[in-house]
Amino acid sequence: MDSASKPSIKAGTPPGTLIHIGSDVNSKVEIRVFIYNDGHFSENKYSSVSDVPTLPPAGQIIWVDVDGNHDETIMKQLGQKFSIHELVLSDAMSDEQRTKLDILDNALFWVLKMVYPDKDSQNIVIEQVSFYLKANILITFQEKREDVFEPIRNRIRQCKGRVRKSGADYLFYALADVIVDNYIIVLERIADRTETLEESIMANPKVSTLESVYDLKRELLFLRKSIFPLKEIVTKLQKEETGLITDQTQIYLKDLYDHVVQVNESIETYREMLASLIDMYMMLNSNAMNQVVKTLTIISTIFIPLTFIVGVYGMNFDNMPELRWHYGYFIICGIMVVMAILMLLYFRKKKWF
Amino acid sequence: MDSASKPSIKAGTPPGTLIHIGSDVNSKVEIRVFIYNDGHFSENKYSSVSDVPTLPPAGQIIWVDVDGNHDETIMKQLGQKFSIHELVLSDAMSDEQRTKLDILDNALFWVLKMVYPDKDSQNIVIEQVSFYLKANILITFQEKREDVFEPIRNRIRQCKGRVRKSGADYLFYALADVIVDNYIIVLERIADRTETLEESIMANPKVSTLESVYDLKRELLFLRKSIFPLKEIVTKLQKEETGLITDQTQIYLKDLYDHVVQVNESIETYREMLASLIDMYMMLNSNAMNQVVKTLTIISTIFIPLTFIVGVYGMNFDNMPELRWHYGYFIICGIMVVMAILMLLYFRKKKWF
Amino acid sequence: MDSASKPSIKAGTPPGTLIHIGSDVNSKVEIRVFIYNDGHFSENKYSSVSDVPTLPPAGQIIWVDVDGNHDETIMKQLGQKFSIHELVLSDAMSDEQRTKLDILDNALFWVLKMVYPDKDSQNIVIEQVSFYLKANILITFQEKREDVFEPIRNRIRQCKGRVRKSGADYLFYALADVIVDNYIIVLERIADRTETLEESIMANPKVSTLESVYDLKRELLFLRKSIFPLKEIVTKLQKEETGLITDQTQIYLKDLYDHVVQVNESIETYREMLASLIDMYMMLNSNAMNQVVKTLTIISTIFIPLTFIVGVYGMNFDNMPELRWHYGYFIICGIMVVMAILMLLYFRKKKWF
Amino acid sequence: MDSASKPSIKAGTPPGTLIHIGSDVNSKVEIRVFIYNDGHFSENKYSSVSDVPTLPPAGQIIWVDVDGNHDETIMKQLGQKFSIHELVLSDAMSDEQRTKLDILDNALFWVLKMVYPDKDSQNIVIEQVSFYLKANILITFQEKREDVFEPIRNRIRQCKGRVRKSGADYLFYALADVIVDNYIIVLERIADRTETLEESIMANPKVSTLESVYDLKRELLFLRKSIFPLKEIVTKLQKEETGLITDQTQIYLKDLYDHVVQVNESIETYREMLASLIDMYMMLNSNAMNQVVKTLTIISTIFIPLTFIVGVYGMNFDNMPELRWHYGYFIICGIMVVMAILMLLYFRKKKWF
Amino acid sequence: MDSASKPSIKAGTPPGTLIHIGSDVNSKVEIRVFIYNDGHFSENKYSSVSDVPTLPPAGQIIWVDVDGNHDETIMKQLGQKFSIHELVLSDAMSDEQRTKLDILDNALFWVLKMVYPDKDSQNIVIEQVSFYLKANILITFQEKREDVFEPIRNRIRQCKGRVRKSGADYLFYALADVIVDNYIIVLERIADRTETLEESIMANPKVSTLESVYDLKRELLFLRKSIFPLKEIVTKLQKEETGLITDQTQIYLKDLYDHVVQVNESIETYREMLASLIDMYMMLNSNAMNQVVKTLTIISTIFIPLTFIVGVYGMNFDNMPELRWHYGYFIICGIMVVMAILMLLYFRKKKWF
Repeated sequence: MDSASKPSIKAGTPPGTLIHIGSDVNSKVEIRVFIYNDGHFSENKYSSVSDVPTLPPAGQIIWVDVDGNHDETIMKQLGQKFSIHELVLSDAMSDEQRTKLDILDNALFWVLKMVYPDKDSQNIVIEQVSFYLKANILITFQEKREDVFEPIRNRIRQCKGRVRKSGADYLFYALADVIVDNYIIVLERIADRTETLEESIMANPKVSTLESVYDLKRELLFLRKSIFPLKEIVTKLQKEETGLITDQTQIYLKDLYDHVVQVNESIETYREMLASLIDMYMMLNSNAMNQVVKTLTIISTIFIPLTFIVGVYGMNFDNMPELRWHYGYFIICGIMVVMAILMLLYFRKKKWF
Repeated sequence: MDSASKPSIKAGTPPGTLIHIGSDVNSKVEIRVFIYNDGHFSENKYSSVSDVPTLPPAGQIIWVDVDGNHDETIMKQLGQKFSIHELVLSDAMSDEQRTKLDILDNALFWVLKMVYPDKDSQNIVIEQVSFYLKANILITFQEKREDVFEPIRNRIRQCKGRVRKSGADYLFYALADVIVDNYIIVLERIADRTETLEESIMANPKVSTLESVYDLKRELLFLRKSIFPLKEIVTKLQKEETGLITDQTQIYLKDLYDHVVQVNESIETYREMLASLIDMYMMLNSNAMNQVVKTLTIISTIFIPLTFIVGVYGMNFDNMPELRWHYGYFIICGIMVVMAILMLLYFRKKKWF
Repeated sequence: MDSASKPSIKAGTPPGTLIHIGSDVNSKVEIRVFIYNDGHFSENKYSSVSDVPTLPPAGQIIWVDVDGNHDETIMKQLGQKFSIHELVLSDAMSDEQRTKLDILDNALFWVLKMVYPDKDSQNIVIEQVSFYLKANILITFQEKREDVFEPIRNRIRQCKGRVRKSGADYLFYALADVIVDNYIIVLERIADRTETLEESIMANPKVSTLESVYDLKRELLFLRKSIFPLKEIVTKLQKEETGLITDQTQIYLKDLYDHVVQVNESIETYREMLASLIDMYMMLNSNAMNQVVKTLTIISTIFIPLTFIVGVYGMNFDNMPELRWHYGYFIICGIMVVMAILMLLYFRKKKWF
Repeated sequence: MDSASKPSIKAGTPPGTLIHIGSDVNSKVEIRVFIYNDGHFSENKYSSVSDVPTLPPAGQIIWVDVDGNHDETIMKQLGQKFSIHELVLSDAMSDEQRTKLDILDNALFWVLKMVYPDKDSQNIVIEQVSFYLKANILITFQEKREDVFEPIRNRIRQCKGRVRKSGADYLFYALADVIVDNYIIVLERIADRTETLEESIMANPKVSTLESVYDLKRELLFLRKSIFPLKEIVTKLQKEETGLITDQTQIYLKDLYDHVVQVNESIETYREMLASLIDMYMMLNSNAMNQVVKTLTIISTIFIPLTFIVGVYGMNFDNMPELRWHYGYFIICGIMVVMAILMLLYFRKKKWF
Repeated sequence: MDSASKPSIKAGTPPGTLIHIGSDVNSKVEIRVFIYNDGHFSENKYSSVSDVPTLPPAGQIIWVDVDGNHDETIMKQLGQKFSIHELVLSDAMSDEQRTKLDILDNALFWVLKMVYPDKDSQNIVIEQVSFYLKANILITFQEKREDVFEPIRNRIRQCKGRVRKSGADYLFYALADVIVDNYIIVLERIADRTETLEESIMANPKVSTLESVYDLKRELLFLRKSIFPLKEIVTKLQKEETGLITDQTQIYLKDLYDHVVQVNESIETYREMLASLIDMYMMLNSNAMNQVVKTLTIISTIFIPLTFIVGVYGMNFDNMPELRWHYGYFIICGIMVVMAILMLLYFRKKKWF
């Protein structure tokens, strides 16, 4: 996730230069193409752009699912095939573009962050997906092989739900919806971790737990940076006038908007809860320290004066009458016991223990 | 209340899938139907949707009060009977939808949080209620059996107040009003608890009291999350143009708006007061610790030098002239008394005690 | 002032139910009526609503000054006499309505908080006043007998200033103006108290002084809650289009607006100053504690090693050559003096004292 | 500056009553009148209003520079002579009016705060100046004799710059500009003081330096209160439609706006820097305390166990074999040296020194 | 960078006076002129304004690149040659003008901050550049010799990218773009420094590291001040209606806007991360201190009572029976060992070590 925090740019190169920004990936680019409508469905994989069909047959939808956005040549060819502006291509090639929506003349370009737990390490992975929507055409760009779109692909394959009966705009919505659903899943994990941290702090406020709280806080910071702009973007989508989003899909955007708002609110809630946890830690810790200092003070305050008294009778003066008294030792011991008891009573009254 | 903090979603399922979100409830669904106008009144309970009347006789109002929103089949049938969009149904089936108002073509859909103290534990319960208002029809969905609507039902039954003489929009308002009134009651309990906590902190700043303050702060956080959006929603209601809200009811919405603003302001006030309480605790605690450390310092600073002196005359050198002096012991004791007094005077001057 | 923080409501009763909210007052309701214009003036007291004249003679202004808003019957009669909506009456009967302005069809309803120092205890009293303005008619509602309107009454009686020459809207303004002037007076008292607290903290940072700072902070919180909405309200008044506020009065509203802004700014300034005072206290206190700990450390660090040395020569080993030396005692004493001086120099260099 | 924090008002007096608010000044009022255009220039002083010319000869500008706004009679006469509304006069007589712009029918009334270092004490002085602009007429009101306008007067006298060639609006601008320039000068002094305080805190974090930081912070608070509204006011001026500000002067207002924004930004920057300084102080101070406590701990932890050991061999039991060993004393001394060294190594490893 | 924090102005001089504000620079002014279009290109250096060509041949673009903005005469001549308003010239001569965009009648004037690492010291340098754009003419003003424009100059010289084929507005954009790219480079350095500081604080929380954090925080503060207004400015540029920015360039402004937003977000992210670092330091430091105090307490609490006991048997009373017991010494030693073990167990239970 750290790389997400570092802006990276090719300073000095002309704008629109096609350079992949992000960690290098060696895997080959794979282009999966779905062509479908209510009655028809085909799914093919290509590794060369020239084989990819451009225009879907009348009444059919084409989804070009590009796995691997690092290959300059392939991106250029895709750009030419589907007449995509070079600045859009350049954004789609980045892994570190911010979440945004560009409303172009006859197309929508949406950069989103896909967030999911890594299969092995269970760490949260933030990955860029770009959507390019034109009439009947949806192109998606992403780098890594794992994604969260499989349920949608299955719905297309098995003709479940509304997707095969609707246009490219519904597909566009459905993919965004599944991304937002995954935000919620990730937030549930964060909720669990917050709860675990809270219990562990209440039980024993250790500095290592607090470091985990700070780590979680920072993860939330990056998550928020990725997700926060979505609220405004969905609102913008609801008002766009390109005609690419049909009225039937608009009502689903309302639902998407609700989810986005809920995600943002949850992030804020967890931020406040983590801040409370840190306060809590401080408080419990300072309370523990106060106990320590009180213990020190009680022990010192009782024994330092007593030690002084026994020191007095350890002096070697020739003429110290008390030392000669037959019960001197016992009298002094009695006095010391009384002093100790009085001091304990005083501390008890002061509620020190 | 914890569950309210966890977003929950059926990721990957098509939008509009009817799945109950929230803790499972086994109780049977019960549909209570009130049909009334100024002169007429009937109240019936149904457990099957097919028996529920759809259209009220001309000039009558129908209130369909659905207790139990977890049964997919029943919800689907209700949706068909009253032609409710599946996304609306899906929101009505959730227990964790955020507070919101959807203005649909010829209907209003309002999700609210009902807040009331649990009858047994007196804990605060947050429960979702959904209102679906069409011309002359109001449908309400909720899960648990206890609610705060009984006074309204009685007003309908006994033909008290304005409710029997007004339309479905007034009923819609009246139910919302009683929910908001309950927010105020809950806030009064919070006010009492805040006061108790304050007194207890002023009397004896214990860490357990502070934990109660943090608990209350968190309860307020969830309450605020549920209630805060209402201000904007009521404003939106006042401006809606479906014609479902008549002018006579609009003036009551103003009153509702005042209450909502008052509730929000009170929440903010309590938040500030709790924050002050925490500061207060910190301050009193640090003050108490300062007393402890001062005590330690006074005792140590007086006795450590004296102990050194008696140590000196406890040494076993053969040649220590003072030890031989006849009044050596008494002289040394006198010196030590003078030293102790001087140090006490110094501390007094420094205002240490 | 505490009661101002507790919202209070008659949950479950129909809206518009006339119930007095606030502490009960036994005093009888007294209705004072001023009828005046440039040439004419009459002042009468009534205790029954039926005697109160409704319509002023042409060209005259009537001010109905209702002392006591707790009597349901009287309020109902007033409502009928002057055709006031029952929701307005219900707000006017409350003592805990928030500051607000309702622009009605042919009337303005303004709820304000009157703030003044109590005659006996000099504590700040917050009391609700409601203004109901119609053409040539102004009705004011309040509960307690003391108010800040006496100067205005005298100006009417003695035909001073502009009030007798202007309409009901000017009277409306003049009463609001005197209320805002009293805010400024109360703020001056707060300024004095802030200054006193500051001096007292600088002289001796005691925990009781800090508690007074917190009390003052809370008073400001309630004051702000009462006064803050006024800025927006006066702006709303300047733009209202009922025609009840004449152009001549509009220029005075500008002046009122200036005062309201000034009051709000002063409240913010005092809040910041009190926050600084608390920081100041913390700083001075921690500084004092640092002195205490330094004292402890200096004394301990000097005497603990010396005590060890004298302890060494207090041991009873048979074979300790130093004990037999003739000047052993004096040598050891010399060494200890040198050590103490070196340590003092070290602390001096470290700027510990 | 303290008085600026205290709102002051004549509660109960009719609005528009002409009373001077602020500290009383005994000096006589002096009215200086400049009449000029490109070719002509005259400067005269008057102490009676009746001598002051009202209307400038055609094509000439008149600047009435009133030194002393405390004399009720003179203000009234000026008001009559130049037909100024009594509320405007009443604001011009105050020294504690907030910064504001009133756009009147055919005049602009601007209240500004002049800020300059006092000639003797170098303290910052905040003084009110009011501008009243009508066609070809500018009237300025201020109380104290010192002002920052001398450069403008000289430019008029010596026909330098654009002022003699332009209208009253340019003079209006030029005076405001010189006031804003002085804000920048005052801020430069604050920058110097901030830097000095920072160096002094880094060198030796003393509580008295921190008090200076708080003083400076409070000065900035008052400065900000005076200057902050200017941004909005200049924007308002740029949009006003009285025609009093010509297009030629509008471009200069843009420049003024830039300066005002820069001043506001600088104030925010210094506020942040002072906040950082306070954090810095806290940090350095707590660091110093940590050193103190570590010293105490190291000394105590080394010597307390050693003192215990020598105490053991100071006991007077008849049967203590070690005391009889010939090398007992030396063995014990050796053990103690080893213990001390081990403890020092332990502390070193823990990086305590 | 310090100078950027000090506002500086020529108070009292007429507005538009041409005075260089900033540190004095002795270097001669050098004017580099590029004249180009798709087919043609010339580059010349001039040191006298009279030689500079005014109007480019039809269809050609002229870029006047002024190195050195401190020479009043040259600036005046440039102003006359290209008819630039004197207030614009006066802003272009400053080094401390804030970031702003002036939309003039037929020209755009943009003041930007160029930020780059100094070649030698690697410190961050903030330098002002001003752009003055008219039809086919772009004039840039800056003071220091180093700049970040060389890549653009090379693209013009070598006819790379789009710059030779586009108008002056594209050059205007390209220069701004390279400045923004450099912001990102500088932020990457800050990212690296933040990471280094974080590691160093986690390893060993030293006060000197914290001072570096505060230094970095302050650098970010100045950077933010320079960069923050850009977002609004680019939005303003996108909406300007002078026709100076062609539609082809507008799409590049969108890209620029994205970068500016990304830079602003990164600055906020680093600010939050630095704030977290400071919290982290505090926490680790206080944790370390707690360890110190616990060590002190454990050692003191164990040995102070034991020292008291050995003190008791060091007393010289004639009659102390224990001293005469044959195993007295060993019994006492045994008791002390048991006491020490019990106390250690107690501390272990309390989790003090």
